[in-house]
Amino acid sequence: MVQYTPSLDRSFAAISDPTRRAILLRLGRQADASISELAEVFEMTLTGLKKHVRVLEDAGLVATEKVGRVRHVKIGPRRLDDVTKWISSYRTMLEERLDHLEKFLERTKGMP
Amino acid sequence: MVQYTPSLDRSFAAISDPTRRAILLRLGRQADASISELAEVFEMTLTGLKKHVRVLEDAGLVATEKVGRVRHVKIGPRRLDDVTKWISSYRTMLEERLDHLEKFLERTKGMP
Repeated sequence: MVQYTPSLDRSFAAISDPTRRAILLRLGRQADASISELAEVFEMTLTGLKKHVRVLEDAGLVATEKVGRVRHVKIGPRRLDDVTKWISSYRTMLEERLDHLEKFLERTKGMP
Repeated sequence: MVQYTPSLDRSFAAISDPTRRAILLRLGRQADASISELAEVFEMTLTGLKKHVRVLEDAGLVATEKVGRVRHVKIGPRRLDDVTKWISSYRTMLEERLDHLEKFLERTKGMP
């Protein structure tokens, strides 16, 4: 019955955390950063930050690359297209329902 | 450092589950439903379904009302406006960065 969309679930879950949203904004504004730079900016341990980065990477929202001994993080291939699409169809559906209701009220105005 | 936005977290977390998204779509399409109707549609126990409804209600995405012995569920006051706003600014930021990159490549085209 329920349509199973693991990638959509992962995207929504990834951005449900304020630190992970902040990491995305930081990477969007100032290109890439190393794990340790991000840990410093967000005042977190390396382990804590790595966990967040892994969740974002699993959702395709960031990509990481190891150069020498440093792991760099940058915006990934997926740009919340699926999330945007789902939300926009949901909102369109609600607006259409509101339109129908308005038309119904218009039609029945003045009726006894 | 990190901007704490509990209501945004709750919205994203609420819609990260496929059953909860399906409940929203069902309520959007066919007005309200009772808890037991929804449990039947989604082939879940009443307890399981109630948990999902509670998460959606805490996020303001559905509202419930008890009429007699039946609890009715309908679309709530919040319509993912905050979620839409966050995603749209994030995407705008990424597009602007792409524009800057294109302009830079245009400017430096043919340079040695």
